[in-house]
Amino acid sequence: MSEYVVAVDVGGTSMKGGLVTRAGTVAATDRRPTGAELGPGNVIAAVRSFTGDLAARGAELFGTAPAAAGIAVPGLVDDATATALYAANLGWRDVPAADLVPLDVPVLLGHDVRTGGLAESVLGAGRELSDFLFLPIGTGIAGAMVIGGGPYGGTSGWAGEIGHVPVFPEGEQCACGQIGCLETYASASAVSRRYSARAASPATAEEVATLTAAGDPLAMKVWDDAVEALSLALATYTLLLDPSAIVLGGGLAEAGPLLADPLAVRLGKRLTFRTAPPLRKAALGVAAGMLGAALLGWRAAGVPEAGASWSPDVSRTPAVP
Amino acid sequence: MSEYVVAVDVGGTSMKGGLVTRAGTVAATDRRPTGAELGPGNVIAAVRSFTGDLAARGAELFGTAPAAAGIAVPGLVDDATATALYAANLGWRDVPAADLVPLDVPVLLGHDVRTGGLAESVLGAGRELSDFLFLPIGTGIAGAMVIGGGPYGGTSGWAGEIGHVPVFPEGEQCACGQIGCLETYASASAVSRRYSARAASPATAEEVATLTAAGDPLAMKVWDDAVEALSLALATYTLLLDPSAIVLGGGLAEAGPLLADPLAVRLGKRLTFRTAPPLRKAALGVAAGMLGAALLGWRAAGVPEAGASWSPDVSRTPAVP
Repeated sequence: MSEYVVAVDVGGTSMKGGLVTRAGTVAATDRRPTGAELGPGNVIAAVRSFTGDLAARGAELFGTAPAAAGIAVPGLVDDATATALYAANLGWRDVPAADLVPLDVPVLLGHDVRTGGLAESVLGAGRELSDFLFLPIGTGIAGAMVIGGGPYGGTSGWAGEIGHVPVFPEGEQCACGQIGCLETYASASAVSRRYSARAASPATAEEVATLTAAGDPLAMKVWDDAVEALSLALATYTLLLDPSAIVLGGGLAEAGPLLADPLAVRLGKRLTFRTAPPLRKAALGVAAGMLGAALLGWRAAGVPEAGASWSPDVSRTPAVP
Repeated sequence: MSEYVVAVDVGGTSMKGGLVTRAGTVAATDRRPTGAELGPGNVIAAVRSFTGDLAARGAELFGTAPAAAGIAVPGLVDDATATALYAANLGWRDVPAADLVPLDVPVLLGHDVRTGGLAESVLGAGRELSDFLFLPIGTGIAGAMVIGGGPYGGTSGWAGEIGHVPVFPEGEQCACGQIGCLETYASASAVSRRYSARAASPATAEEVATLTAAGDPLAMKVWDDAVEALSLALATYTLLLDPSAIVLGGGLAEAGPLLADPLAVRLGKRLTFRTAPPLRKAALGVAAGMLGAALLGWRAAGVPEAGASWSPDVSRTPAVP
């Protein structure tokens, strides 16, 4: 069998790719735009070209075609037919895996957040945990619910949409059409938007975090609302799922104790008859999706045990986007 | 192997017992008080005496000791050690199964709500579903989350506490110490309590349902609050777990369309980017716990496939308590 797989994490605006060996060595990485603004046909061509170029690079390095490919994509995936069903931000519908990978090798597709959760589960912050929540907080919020050792997708692939849990039913309108969703208070873009709408000049979420740490009252209020919304959603998650930990990732988690410390206090206060699960920081940063795609690739290649012994050298995402 | 198991469902105030054959025939049933008001020692003795008497009845009917026993108990259960760990309403701690069953047969204990969910899953309203929520609405509210074909208990046995999900974070105080819990608006006792606190004379939940159907404005408001609270909690459940159905049980579900119709409408409205799972009525009524305990008994006896072919003749619970 070939010594490596092609792994690609397709995001809304850019793709991260890598060649990953069975021992977990990341032999090469690359990054490209998805070109989503040019329409779904262009995105499919871009992914196809990217995976093809990664495989060509692999042929140079290893002298063979890859053993398989793993692709993490936004939106719904049908595992049974290896089809990317639907992604609102990319505009595609019913894209077979073969359209994304111009190679005669096994391919597994995965939902982007759950693929990142798979990586955190197998080789990241949830390594020894069978049941936990991986919650990346970025432009939007969705969670990967690891249940019984693996990411859980629900009946139709829509599980984990914690960003649209109604935390303040009398609250602000969310872009989804609903009222008071977690995401509309606590995503990195919400923190930036809510501060900027009230301040003399706009600020990124990272800047709001800095202002909060410096004691700026308006920033502190916006930050406090985000913490309050997260504490409600995570109390609900804990009461329903009884996880052994909550792993915080994404840009907002880079704020570290500024987010995690008040959140842990409030989550504990909201749970009266049980203890709160510990909060952990995600271990794999922005590489989680690509590494999870590599795990999918090795599963497609018939090596499901790959990953447990990997010690990836992860360059962390530096800051709130 | 013996032809029957002893099954007991231990509730807060009474116990339901039965002798159930491998083919699902309920050969005998009985009911007794738990005597919880006399302390945990008395409850343990009452359960022990009840299971012993049921086995004696079985010996008369079948000429043999039972193949095994299954006991559904409130509160936490440790499957690995067959120990009833803790139940607030019974006051017991760390009760080994052997203390509850004076027989030399295999015994399985189960959490009461999840044991009812097991029965609805194997032979009730969720028969063909691998992933759904069983939500009995009675004096309190807790759910059995069926995930991947079986009830899910979480990391520490505390999963499914949907009754204490904060649906109105600025709302009324719950007995648990928290604010705005589902249970404090939507349990049968909450419907009765909230109506009675505002009305000239008190009413049971069943009476509030009747008054609501008759157009009484105060009853309609209390009923509406319960529906609203349920729609928020079930929207949250759906967004997180993506179930294929929600099975409503317990006393309040006996109100039928008066509860289910407005709840289905509001749940649908709260979900903007996905459809709502269908609401179903539980099939097994108050017998769910005892039948689930019988399934546990057959599992303890080494017959895990028992149940799938059962067609229990269930006498439904008639009304809201």
